[in-house]
Parts: sequence; structure tokens; C-alpha cells
Amino acid sequence: MYPLLSDLRVVECASFIAGPSCALHLGQLGAQVIRIDPIGGGMDFNRWPVAANGRSLYWEGLQKGKRSVAIDLARPEGRELAADLITAPGPDAGLFVTNYPQQGFLAHESLSQRRPDLITVRVLGWRDGSPAVDYTVNAALGMPWITGSERNGDQPVNHVVPAWDLVTGAYAAFALMAAERYRLRTGLGQEVCVPLSDVALACLGHTGQVAEALTAGDRPRYGNALFGAFGRDFLTQDGQRVMVVAITARQWSGLVKSLDLQAPVAVLESSLQANFAEEGQRFVHREALFPLFDKAIGALTLAQVRERFDTGSVLWSPYQTLRTALDADPRLALTEPLFQTLEHPSGHRYPAPGAAASFQGAERGPLQPAPRLGEHTDQVLAEVLSLSPSRIGQLHDAGIIA
Amino acid sequence: MYPLLSDLRVVECASFIAGPSCALHLGQLGAQVIRIDPIGGGMDFNRWPVAANGRSLYWEGLQKGKRSVAIDLARPEGRELAADLITAPGPDAGLFVTNYPQQGFLAHESLSQRRPDLITVRVLGWRDGSPAVDYTVNAALGMPWITGSERNGDQPVNHVVPAWDLVTGAYAAFALMAAERYRLRTGLGQEVCVPLSDVALACLGHTGQVAEALTAGDRPRYGNALFGAFGRDFLTQDGQRVMVVAITARQWSGLVKSLDLQAPVAVLESSLQANFAEEGQRFVHREALFPLFDKAIGALTLAQVRERFDTGSVLWSPYQTLRTALDADPRLALTEPLFQTLEHPSGHRYPAPGAAASFQGAERGPLQPAPRLGEHTDQVLAEVLSLSPSRIGQLHDAGIIA
Repeated sequence: MYPLLSDLRVVECASFIAGPSCALHLGQLGAQVIRIDPIGGGMDFNRWPVAANGRSLYWEGLQKGKRSVAIDLARPEGRELAADLITAPGPDAGLFVTNYPQQGFLAHESLSQRRPDLITVRVLGWRDGSPAVDYTVNAALGMPWITGSERNGDQPVNHVVPAWDLVTGAYAAFALMAAERYRLRTGLGQEVCVPLSDVALACLGHTGQVAEALTAGDRPRYGNALFGAFGRDFLTQDGQRVMVVAITARQWSGLVKSLDLQAPVAVLESSLQANFAEEGQRFVHREALFPLFDKAIGALTLAQVRERFDTGSVLWSPYQTLRTALDADPRLALTEPLFQTLEHPSGHRYPAPGAAASFQGAERGPLQPAPRLGEHTDQVLAEVLSLSPSRIGQLHDAGIIA
Repeated sequence: MYPLLSDLRVVECASFIAGPSCALHLGQLGAQVIRIDPIGGGMDFNRWPVAANGRSLYWEGLQKGKRSVAIDLARPEGRELAADLITAPGPDAGLFVTNYPQQGFLAHESLSQRRPDLITVRVLGWRDGSPAVDYTVNAALGMPWITGSERNGDQPVNHVVPAWDLVTGAYAAFALMAAERYRLRTGLGQEVCVPLSDVALACLGHTGQVAEALTAGDRPRYGNALFGAFGRDFLTQDGQRVMVVAITARQWSGLVKSLDLQAPVAVLESSLQANFAEEGQRFVHREALFPLFDKAIGALTLAQVRERFDTGSVLWSPYQTLRTALDADPRLALTEPLFQTLEHPSGHRYPAPGAAASFQGAERGPLQPAPRLGEHTDQVLAEVLSLSPSRIGQLHDAGIIA
């Protein structure tokens, strides 16, 4: 945790990846994050992966360092209390992250009547507010039709990384910071809506895929080949797979040289009347080029490939399993400063990541694990809302808090 | 473009997706972005997808609304000029986004001697600064081994969405905002390093996948099945594919009811001694459940599925190609406010996206297309560095600028 945003207080009422990761990012740069949890846990409290005892490793990963206030959100008194917390005074508070419906009891319109400078960052599924998840947005946008090899025929291939959720979480944290900076200058609060589907569609627009589809039609499947330049998986002599990429002219000449392929590549270039210094030409002629590399890489062990590629500054990586990567790849070591080993609510002790950015001008503080549900209920209600011990006791007795 | 950050001036010297998208996000919320382009274009100036005339749709998507200053960065005078621009005075300037090497001529250490409160956000590949792209990081982290069906055997399956690049771009924009807020309070600048591989690894940590790999080993391939709950692609009677998801108990009961599957599901639940109200049980018993849904969905046309699922609030989407989605799906329409139709440098006129977030408290202004290389060279050098017309003429004559 970096102490960059330590004057900010954020209230979160959210589930799944985008909303909770938005608040996690803010917390890991120093904001105090108060998470309102429904008593017994929200919709994602048991989301897989889970530990052998059933506790969610997913949930405890996303809630690291947050304070948990457990409230019965089905009852009017609970909803009132949540609204009190969200709109509690403080010049650097009044920041709310949620994926609850826009028209429900956590509507910005009603909350902002209590605190006009409230900033609500609301993650939506589709832009009309109807629910969507990464898998449904991705299917709608056609990515599974261009993932995997042609051999998949008329079968879509889902990707497993929750890409749009993760982009949306990071982008929502950025959007909150922009709205908060605007409030610092103007005093104005506002609602900021971040639909998963708009994030995905905008990303495809920003990287030219929307323009491509509109002007040239749908992209076919290219299997593991990198689109528009040279790149693919190759098999080594000892049965290992490596991903090799050459986008720039320099990467290309380095790769060719490292495999001593200058002569056969030049022959091919001449016979095809091609210019492989242009990345697009390497893609257009990939089926002619790949066999040369299949043969050259197939004659080397992974260790030999590694030696040649690393000394030749080739852009490449072995395909590893995640566990192998974590155990053996120094570039992905679970060590400080990025990782700190903690005891988590699941009972497991394992290294967990802090902020993915390294700030040279501030010191990384200790990482805190996820809270138990309601771990900070009494403390937060006393601190933020100045509720007396007897009032807090009454709320417990009535089952409004836990 | 929302006028939220209109007092900020950002200088960008970056290529590919993460750095340029970071600056694009800042620009779309109002920051003035000055992009330093090498004369003739940087490493990604011709990146695919390209238009029929060879112009990059990718490049023009990522540089929308930026001002381009073309400088010969191979020569000392050009490097000096770039450093002048990056460190030019102004209370809300001194913000620099780059993916140039940490030790090169754009090192933060030397730049910050000219402007001590400079904030440099530097996107790296691996955390040690060696180069990496989305494809190599992803291969190293094992995602291609759990993408696609078991039938792929020992063949990895790359995904096509540049997920880690996109997350890194959004996260870098967030990190810059946090550093800038810190500077507002303290006056301190700093370098912020955002390695692609740390972003990817932290994301897998935050969502429990690192913990899963450490405690239970590598996840196998589950094909198109959603991990840990109910979800998969299904084929309709008329040969269409739909992605159907049920993570929450409510989504599950809604899905079962919409297909009139209450009775057979209850029989199965009882015979398996399972409790399908628990999402994990639906995943454990997916091979027993899927045939019921294959049959029920396979007996309906896509139109019938749509009617049932939409009235039953089922979480689903048809698999569409991107072009079909853009042409026919109202949830993904390329219309205002998210999209505006512009004339782009490629010569094509097509709708391009603004900020993916909607700010209710500010008005979206007009979107600007990407610049031509060097379109704003003279204007920016006069405005920001107060260079005289004769000095600018000299620089042109010497080929330092274009």
C-alpha cells in the first residue's frame, strides 16, 4: 500500500471483478476503502476458485486491505445506514463505487440529495443497465469466433482471462480520480457510469478493430499467429513450446540472425518478391515463413533456444503453466516488493500482490489481507457516523448489522 | 472529450497499446496530449489492422485527439527539444507517458533535473525492463494452456484480445492521476513504473488464480465452460450459438424456469445428492447438467431463445461476429454519445469511440481524429516553448523537426 491517496475515503458496495477491483486499486494507492457487505456475504462471496474449506480465494484476493461493514440491505433501516455511510461528511469522502442497479435504493439521485458533491462510480453490464458479464459481452463482440485455430470450424472459443472486467476495474478507478480532481476544482459531484460493454467496444475502437470490421469485414481465425506481423508458437526439439514475436524491423533481423536464417529468408524474400522489413509482409507470407522457423527451432532444445534468443534480444517466451511460472520464472517471482506473504481469511498463507505500479517517490507500506465479513462494522459506525455503543448494540440486536 | 482535466498537459512518447492508450484515456477526459512522434513515425506507425492504402487503423485509433510534434530523436538536438517539451513549465504540466527504456535518453533521472516535480509514467515489458508484449507475457503466465478445449491436447491456444496491454493502459492512467494528486498536495514529482508482466501477475493474484495455483496446482482446460459456476455455449435449433451464464442462485432459477427444466433438474439434483443453488455444485456436476440444456436449447430457434431468456432475465448473449454486432445489435450501436463519426487520416470516415465512461456532471464535447505526423509541430513549439518563427524555420531546415 502506497500512501498517495491516504486522505481519500471510498465506500464500496459491489460484487464480481470490475467494481471490487476498482476499489482495490484505490485502496492499494492509499485510499481508505469501506466495503459494505450484505450479512452473510454478497453474490460473489463463494465465487471460485475456492480453498478446500470452501472459502473463496477470488473474494479474498479482491477485498484485500478493505474494511468490512456487514449490513442487512434488504431492510429499510439497513439501507438507511448504508446511505448514511456513503454520504457521510468529510472533504475527501463522498466517493462511492458500486455495481448496484441505477434505479434501485442506491440510486445516485437520492444519495446526492444527502450529499450534493457525492461522486458515484457505477459499473454496469450493458449500457442500458441490463446485466452482462465478461463472457456474454465477449460472445456478443465476436472475439470467440477469431480465437483458436480454423479447425474449430463453427465452434466459438471463449478466452479465460476476464479481460473486460479487468480493464473496466482499472478504467473505473481512473474515471473516479478524474471526477474527484474535477470536484476539487469545482465542488461538483456527479454519477459516472462505466458499462462493461462500452469499455469493451471502446477498446476495440481504439485499437482499430471496429474500423477494420466496418471497412474490410470480419477478421478470420488466424490460430496462434500474431495478427499483422510475425509471431506464432513453435515446438522445440525437446517438445517444449515457445511464443516468438517480431513486430519491429529490429526484432525481425535479430530473430533471423539468432537462428542463422539470413540466407534462406533472403532466398524466400526474393522468390516471393516480398520485403520482410515490413511487418505486414511477414504476416501476408507467414505460411511460407513459418516452416523455416519450425525447422530451425525444432532442431534446438529449449535451453539452446533460450541461449540464442536471450543473447540475440529476441522477443519471446516459453509457454509455461501458471504454477511453473510462479515456481521457476524469476521474472514472475512472488517476491517483494510486488508480493507480500499474508495469512488470508481462507486460512491459507500465500503471497498476494500490492499495486502493480511502482512509485519511486513513495514507500510501499505493508499489505493487509481481506477482512472477515463485518470485521469493522462497529469500528466504522463509531468512527464515521459517530454512533454510540448503545446504538450499535441496538442495531446488532435488531439484526440490521453483523 | 469531457472537459474534466482540461488544465492538464501530458507529453507522450510511446508506441503500441499500453502507453498510447494511457494518454488517450487522459485526453478523452480533457487533458491536452502532445505526442512526440519520430519523423516518419514510430515503431507502431504501420501496425495492423491497416486500410487498403496501407495506413494504420490501429495507430489512428490510439492517437485520436492528440497533437503531433515530429522530432528526429536520433540526434542530440532532437533529444534536447523533446526533453524541453517534456519538462516545459506550467503548474499542471510536467506529466510524461512513455515506453522508452528506463536508462535511455528519456531517463527520468536526467529529465527531472530540468523539472524536479516531473511525473514520468513508464510502461515496461518485464519488471527488469526487458521487452515483452501481451503474447509473450500471456504465454509465460500459462493462460494459453487453459484456453480452448481439451481436444487441443499439448497445443497452447493464444487469445486474441490484447488484454494485458489494455489493462496496463487504463491502470497507468489511474496511476498517473494518483501521482498527480500527490504532487498537488506535496509538490513532489516521481517516476512510476508499470510493467506489463506485473499488471498481469497482479490481476491473477487479485482474482485468486495465483492462490489457486499455489494451493491446488494448475487449472486444467475447461473448454467453453465458465469456471466455478454454470455457463457454456449452446447450439440452437437453427444452428446459432448462445453463451448462457448462471452465477447467482437467482440467475440459475431464472434460467431453469425459462427453459421449463424445473422437473428434470430437480430429479438430477436428487439423484446426485447435489444442491444446485450453490454455484460450485453446478460446476462440479456440469457434465450431468449440460445435456439437459443442450436438449432444451437445441429444440428452440434463436428467436425463441431470445424471447424466453429476455423475459426471464437470463444472463446470456448470442455469439455474433464483430461486424454483425456493429450492424445489428442495439446494445453495441456505434451511435452518440459514445461514438462520433469522423474523417480519419486513413481517408476513411467511420464512427470512433470517446471515453468509455459517461460523466453525468459534464458535457461530452466533440471528438477529434488522430493528427497527421507533425501536424502540430510548429504550433506546439511556439506555444509551449515560445520558439520564434525563425528558430522553428532553422529546426526544419536542419531536419530536426518535421
